Amino acid sequence: MLPFDELKIDALLVSAPPNVRYLSGFTGDNGLLLATPDSLTLFTDPRFTIQASEECACDVKIVTKGPLDQSALALAARKRRKRIGFEAGRLLFDVYQRMQAALPSGFTLKPVGAVIDKLRMVKSEDEIARIRRSVLTNSKAFDKTVRSIRPGVSESDIAAELEYQMRRFGAEKAAFETIVAIGQRSALPHAQPTARKLGNDELLLIDMGACQQGYMSDMTRVLFAGQPSRRVRRMYNAVLKAQLAGLDAVRPGVTAAHVDRAARRVLEAEGLGKEFVHSTGHGLGLEIHEGPRLGRRDKTRLQPGMVITIEPGAYIRDFGGVRIEDTALVTANGCEVLTPTSKELMLL
Amino acid sequence: MLPFDELKIDALLVSAPPNVRYLSGFTGDNGLLLATPDSLTLFTDPRFTIQASEECACDVKIVTKGPLDQSALALAARKRRKRIGFEAGRLLFDVYQRMQAALPSGFTLKPVGAVIDKLRMVKSEDEIARIRRSVLTNSKAFDKTVRSIRPGVSESDIAAELEYQMRRFGAEKAAFETIVAIGQRSALPHAQPTARKLGNDELLLIDMGACQQGYMSDMTRVLFAGQPSRRVRRMYNAVLKAQLAGLDAVRPGVTAAHVDRAARRVLEAEGLGKEFVHSTGHGLGLEIHEGPRLGRRDKTRLQPGMVITIEPGAYIRDFGGVRIEDTALVTANGCEVLTPTSKELMLL
Repeated sequence: MLPFDELKIDALLVSAPPNVRYLSGFTGDNGLLLATPDSLTLFTDPRFTIQASEECACDVKIVTKGPLDQSALALAARKRRKRIGFEAGRLLFDVYQRMQAALPSGFTLKPVGAVIDKLRMVKSEDEIARIRRSVLTNSKAFDKTVRSIRPGVSESDIAAELEYQMRRFGAEKAAFETIVAIGQRSALPHAQPTARKLGNDELLLIDMGACQQGYMSDMTRVLFAGQPSRRVRRMYNAVLKAQLAGLDAVRPGVTAAHVDRAARRVLEAEGLGKEFVHSTGHGLGLEIHEGPRLGRRDKTRLQPGMVITIEPGAYIRDFGGVRIEDTALVTANGCEVLTPTSKELMLL
Repeated sequence: MLPFDELKIDALLVSAPPNVRYLSGFTGDNGLLLATPDSLTLFTDPRFTIQASEECACDVKIVTKGPLDQSALALAARKRRKRIGFEAGRLLFDVYQRMQAALPSGFTLKPVGAVIDKLRMVKSEDEIARIRRSVLTNSKAFDKTVRSIRPGVSESDIAAELEYQMRRFGAEKAAFETIVAIGQRSALPHAQPTARKLGNDELLLIDMGACQQGYMSDMTRVLFAGQPSRRVRRMYNAVLKAQLAGLDAVRPGVTAAHVDRAARRVLEAEGLGKEFVHSTGHGLGLEIHEGPRLGRRDKTRLQPGMVITIEPGAYIRDFGGVRIEDTALVTANGCEVLTPTSKELMLL
């Protein structure tokens, strides 16, 4: 499964927690895997003895003394696996230094790229089923919460209710810190909820995701308390047009950058190019941000089974922002929007 | 403030998000700081333009192209800061490689240890006030939720309610994934909540923390639905005795390991030494796990203003586990337990 020959390595140390989980099933937060062509060994600490034995089919070593990496290196040495790859984008510099210092002579550490992350980009049937459930849970929590939103309720109250409802509908947790931004605060793409209360004639932006059976979902919707001005409507419609153009551009074989361009062009034509300050979307799965990145420079070609977000936005300081986001599955001839929630501007 | 001379560096690249926040006030999730003896510059991306201008008193550079580290290096080069330190325990290997490749001749990258993390161990008055609020919020959410727990309610339901109440009482979010473990599942120190329902005559372990104004709290309590057996009572009392011994050992000048030993000895004397599979506690603040680590090997000497957890536990497979945890402030002559919640075995 792992391309040992192509990478010219005899073993691979897997340090990224989602990659550890992907390969071994282990969900604890302190684990390290050593993969060789004929073995897979999880290293963890005694807090996870029982959990690891329940979750993992692979070998498990409980490390009672010293860092996990030292035990993993020792096993690689005993197995005479001399060229040991490690995840360069997922290992801290000091761990690398510590491993380098302990390396027996004749052995080498070799940085490798995001090989497992790349495997993870195309989802299995089981993974897609989990993402579907996560997306539905997220939309149900949104629907249930939105019904109770009235002027006077705070960003924090709304966020608390959204996350509570997610869990009631089956999520383990929120996929990320739920964004609830009222009025001008919606111009902050990553606004953290505050005690700010919803007034009349105000924008309300909600960006939320669930994590269910380990898999993420991601959705953004914009609501308006009162009657939106022409400026708000124009901005909303421009972003919606860009979002639909993005979805429309998704099909196997096109690059991630192509989809970004499709959405970006619409906003540029609407005079909002400079106000679209982020990329059009990202993959998701065990992590909320995975490859591909639907930005200007990602040349990854889309494949059936990839799950991505499409989420253009426009942000105007001292006025407000609009972002519309769905989670979508790349199919054989286009995409399936998994998010069932309406994209009309909701009026409260 | 930063020991440039002692570290023999002319600039320090700060990459750990809590360290970036500590020095600059920036709370976004993509930031890098370059500190020199006479300047402090935050690098972030356009999603955070407005937020950074609101949060930071230091210089802010919005990077529109390429990785933040490359812009930070370019600034260090322009300023002729030749010896550039970086946080070895907080920087990914591939970022180090990318920086090394871009380094102008005559410049060097120098790994440095946890200097900012060390500064952060002793809290300011303002930080202590925030932690106090977080601790109180956490205990209020516990009290409110516990009143409604009856047999038949699931781990997930309890976790959802606890986190909802935290937010209602002022937290931004949970400090970590709330642990709710029923019956034998309490033997998993890091149990993730499931659909498992509380029955009669069962243990219920809750480990929860709030994050309020950026600062964490941490508490574990054990409840029992019904009448606990003698074995449960004995285990509970042993852990409580160890927890009190740990708190009692806390005072300025003693090592973190000394406190661990004080708690561990009690459990060893009670025949539960092998069942205590983790360390006695940890510092907390902007992160849920900070220094010092109250384990066998940490020789850090406690100082007034440190905030730590004291949380011994014992875990027996196929039976259950008990952990009792408070958040405590090291004072001039001992410690102040910040957590107000009772430590009697609560019966439901």
